[in-house]
Amino acid sequence: MRFLRVGPVGGERPVLLTDDDTHFDLRPLTDDIDGGFLAADGVQRTRRALDAGELPATSISGERIGAPLANPGAVLCIGMNYAEHAAESGAEPPEHPVLFFKTPNTVVGPNDDVLLPPGAEKVDWEVELAVVIGRRARYLDSPADAPGVIAGYALANDVSERAYQLDVSGGQWSKGKCAETFNPLGPWLATADHVGDPQALRMRSWVNDEPRQDSSSKDMIFGVYELVWSLSQYMVLEPGYVINTGTPQGVALSGRFPYLDEGDTIRMEIDRLGSMTQRVRRATR
Amino acid sequence: MRFLRVGPVGGERPVLLTDDDTHFDLRPLTDDIDGGFLAADGVQRTRRALDAGELPATSISGERIGAPLANPGAVLCIGMNYAEHAAESGAEPPEHPVLFFKTPNTVVGPNDDVLLPPGAEKVDWEVELAVVIGRRARYLDSPADAPGVIAGYALANDVSERAYQLDVSGGQWSKGKCAETFNPLGPWLATADHVGDPQALRMRSWVNDEPRQDSSSKDMIFGVYELVWSLSQYMVLEPGYVINTGTPQGVALSGRFPYLDEGDTIRMEIDRLGSMTQRVRRATR
Repeated sequence: MRFLRVGPVGGERPVLLTDDDTHFDLRPLTDDIDGGFLAADGVQRTRRALDAGELPATSISGERIGAPLANPGAVLCIGMNYAEHAAESGAEPPEHPVLFFKTPNTVVGPNDDVLLPPGAEKVDWEVELAVVIGRRARYLDSPADAPGVIAGYALANDVSERAYQLDVSGGQWSKGKCAETFNPLGPWLATADHVGDPQALRMRSWVNDEPRQDSSSKDMIFGVYELVWSLSQYMVLEPGYVINTGTPQGVALSGRFPYLDEGDTIRMEIDRLGSMTQRVRRATR
Repeated sequence: MRFLRVGPVGGERPVLLTDDDTHFDLRPLTDDIDGGFLAADGVQRTRRALDAGELPATSISGERIGAPLANPGAVLCIGMNYAEHAAESGAEPPEHPVLFFKTPNTVVGPNDDVLLPPGAEKVDWEVELAVVIGRRARYLDSPADAPGVIAGYALANDVSERAYQLDVSGGQWSKGKCAETFNPLGPWLATADHVGDPQALRMRSWVNDEPRQDSSSKDMIFGVYELVWSLSQYMVLEPGYVINTGTPQGVALSGRFPYLDEGDTIRMEIDRLGSMTQRVRRATR
């Protein structure tokens, strides 16, 4: 199953997309897809309602697709989780998961514009596998407990401003990760059964249709289950928290490609998680 | 004016405390004190309702005090914002504000227990002046615009686990800042007129009644208005976001004091923002 939110900004409605590509209106079940819905057995209730024929079919043709999760409680990011990306960034592979944050209001629809902050010159793309937490996770015993707290997965662009992140940050990366529109997410939140093995997903990005990143989630240094287990030792993960699990090689920071400019088009794709396209524009103050 | 939330965890009710120390029930005006209330002119509406005699007097005697803000949208922290604390941490004073994050679920009541994570050995206290955002702030023109977006101020303990923050973090501090109960906040959210000059507040902490920190917000490297203006260049600050503005010298990381242990009592105080006391206990898995 895949969960979508469709409609104008701030007025999205919840939609289910089944494995046979039929859309169903989820409003008989919930007003929105958020941490509260996920925590209240939202995925299981959706499956039961679908099986019982309680959801009307719907069409989303021509409509904007929003982020598949409303009001994320926090957006956690894992840094340097692919060895070749660490190398292109001039860093050693980490011994432990590296954690930084984005503000939750960075999350926008998968095809919404990405805005360059006024004066910013080093805005970069990062295709990432995002994990959405569905149950409270506190001091999990082992990575084997992680699947039980994961609601599903989505495609994320962890947009970054490298001068903000590295030059004026005192070394703390979050400052370059939080500008408005810096976390396109979607088109859907896919349940684990739809995704299959989260460590076997091809991940790709393009800028103006030229290939940039082309890797697989199998190359993660710390896999999804290990990350969720590890993070739960340092914090309580709440339903509706999003974890961006790191990006593979092929970003502008490597020096191999130019940074993003006005008019550029970013495209990203992850197996089973769909694709998304953002136009790059300059923010006005 | 001062805003409080009083009652059992998850069942707090909003209360106003006036400058003449009278408590009023805020429920005729709002169910809770959160970003939505602040954004909808909550402070001004409270003042009008008080002046119009629309708020009934109440007593909070014997009741638990919760954090004065429900559902903080994000908890931003400024690092190394006092020169002498930077020195005791072995760092140079920063050239730009240094930003890291806590998860919003770290925020607890001012007198709730602080829990040591299982096995944690380097849990530290940090008295801080917290700023609560009341209006959306995006690319502010100058620090002079900051007072217009600040709802008020509160006393915060930015509890930190130094091994998590420094030894297993890959250098990104947030990992040592996010454990449950790691952000006692309160007892109240004070409006700007109650606080006066935010850069003239004495800030103190004690452990087991022995003095630890004793400084003033005048020693901040980047003052409150400059911080809010600066952050708004890198992100959009939303109503209900909390900014911990950094801690002065006198923490355990300095080597001058032992880290926190089970049974310890932390006490903190900031002029005009009240005082708070936490008992330290060991979390059970």
